[in-house]
Amino acid sequence: MSAPAKALGEQGTVVALCGGVGGAKLAFGLSHLLGERLTVIVNTGDDFEHLGLHISPDIDTVLYTLSDRANRELGWGRKDESWNFMKALAEIGGEGWFQLGDRDLALHVERTRRMRAGDRLTDIVVDFARRFAIPSRILPMSDDAVRTSVVTRDEGVLPFQRYFVERRCQPVVEEVQFQGADSARMSAEVEAALSSADLRAVIVCPSNPYLSIDPLLSVPGISQLLADASAPVVAVSPIIGGQAVKGPTAKIMSELGIPATNATIADHYGDLIDGLMIDEADAAEIGQLAVRATISATLMRTDDDRCRLAEDVLAFAETLAETGSGRRP
Amino acid sequence: MSAPAKALGEQGTVVALCGGVGGAKLAFGLSHLLGERLTVIVNTGDDFEHLGLHISPDIDTVLYTLSDRANRELGWGRKDESWNFMKALAEIGGEGWFQLGDRDLALHVERTRRMRAGDRLTDIVVDFARRFAIPSRILPMSDDAVRTSVVTRDEGVLPFQRYFVERRCQPVVEEVQFQGADSARMSAEVEAALSSADLRAVIVCPSNPYLSIDPLLSVPGISQLLADASAPVVAVSPIIGGQAVKGPTAKIMSELGIPATNATIADHYGDLIDGLMIDEADAAEIGQLAVRATISATLMRTDDDRCRLAEDVLAFAETLAETGSGRRP
Repeated sequence: MSAPAKALGEQGTVVALCGGVGGAKLAFGLSHLLGERLTVIVNTGDDFEHLGLHISPDIDTVLYTLSDRANRELGWGRKDESWNFMKALAEIGGEGWFQLGDRDLALHVERTRRMRAGDRLTDIVVDFARRFAIPSRILPMSDDAVRTSVVTRDEGVLPFQRYFVERRCQPVVEEVQFQGADSARMSAEVEAALSSADLRAVIVCPSNPYLSIDPLLSVPGISQLLADASAPVVAVSPIIGGQAVKGPTAKIMSELGIPATNATIADHYGDLIDGLMIDEADAAEIGQLAVRATISATLMRTDDDRCRLAEDVLAFAETLAETGSGRRP
Repeated sequence: MSAPAKALGEQGTVVALCGGVGGAKLAFGLSHLLGERLTVIVNTGDDFEHLGLHISPDIDTVLYTLSDRANRELGWGRKDESWNFMKALAEIGGEGWFQLGDRDLALHVERTRRMRAGDRLTDIVVDFARRFAIPSRILPMSDDAVRTSVVTRDEGVLPFQRYFVERRCQPVVEEVQFQGADSARMSAEVEAALSSADLRAVIVCPSNPYLSIDPLLSVPGISQLLADASAPVVAVSPIIGGQAVKGPTAKIMSELGIPATNATIADHYGDLIDGLMIDEADAAEIGQLAVRATISATLMRTDDDRCRLAEDVLAFAETLAETGSGRRP
């Protein structure tokens, strides 16, 4: 598994842009291959205040996944989890629509305490990752609040978690908004990671482009740094055979009136990416894509799948770097 | 068990003043006898902010005890408790000196959320008690912050929980202070309970007079209402055979240079009480007390003990009311 890391050089760095569960699987593979050479910049548009606690769903999913604490049976939350807090909360009439496991709660309580004390989310997440012995660096996309909300056809504007968890993505989506994005600032760490002279590749993980990657790209400066990067930017498509592997990507694309195809994903990212990796099941679509593309097995069921896809995408980035393909001059 | 309730009349009300574990046991007995006729006014001097959460140790002990949710093995906290939050908190370096059970945490999170939203602690506690199907009314002594701290000989001023839990009552106490007491206000509910024309008795539970009852008496107006009450005020001594049944009462009395005797307890409460109930083991002390006194078995190991002591103290109050003994004219 060291070949692609070698191919990228022994000292170079890689940045992954990541949402929650689907993206975190590839980040896991990249982290196993690259260790401290990897920085994962994570969507915080899903963050919200619940029960007075600051919840960072995607950040925590990445922390749990990269430290092998994720609950693979549930597909979210922590393994070895218990639910006595929620049972006791129900007894006293507390809100029950968002499940908080007893172990999971520790991160929310400690993060909230530290944020109220004035600590940056970035420092808190870096500390949590260190405590979890994660060799790679995990960074929130911004320390400022950017809040994703969904304009629905029938239920008005819903904060993301209300749409995603409470309403189980059922309302029809007409538009996705990122409140606070205009005034949000990159952290110094995000800026440094994306503008590093050692940067060898930027990997856009197969997260939902509209709900998980767009909020990240909405933070002023991040898109420009991607455009200015000397390293190739490569996305892994979340679409396989016209369906999203997980979550509401395909449903939302349909509601937004756009076909759930890899061509749409390529068009959506446009000039921001130099290459798109699509699933082998969609090999026939390659000719229709407006960007350099390659195929791989993008479904990740096992740790081996995750590491193999990470190898493939790094090799693809290396190929793009060698040929100079797609990079703006 | 209906005799003393009848003796106190079918409609009259009773107020109990209460700290944590020891006092809550008698409150349990009183609640079983009196149901909705009982109001328990609880010390909040031990309340503190921990991990960004508002913790009310004595209030919660009373809630858990009166709803049969208390952990009788531990002597504190909830039964059927789990500790996964604390384990996960330790992983990320959170403070571990104050144990918060997974179920217990629900009350702290929901209370904190509601207080931040502007709800009065009184309303929150009344709601929790209703959810726990407790027939009696439980009231915090005040909605304003009164914070007990302990002036120690060798470690300066310690907030109560740091002294009590983290330092396990080991530092030598020179003085007990109640910060915020001067400007704290009784709630309308506390005032109404203590000035009700239906009031038949006020019971001072066998809590620590210096750490649990004094903060309550430090809230402006409460002592005066006790002095003005037409009903007898009866205390149950926390001292048996020169020792406190639980907690640091005897140790603190020794450090404050006062003998750990029932006579000292009687002198400490002085004119505020009309009668003192002491343990049968201390029957010989009755002649030395400056207040009307009676004996009972004050050690409460079982629910029957709690109910029997409650019967005895209500009967004692009834006797005092009939004879007019000790009541100020």
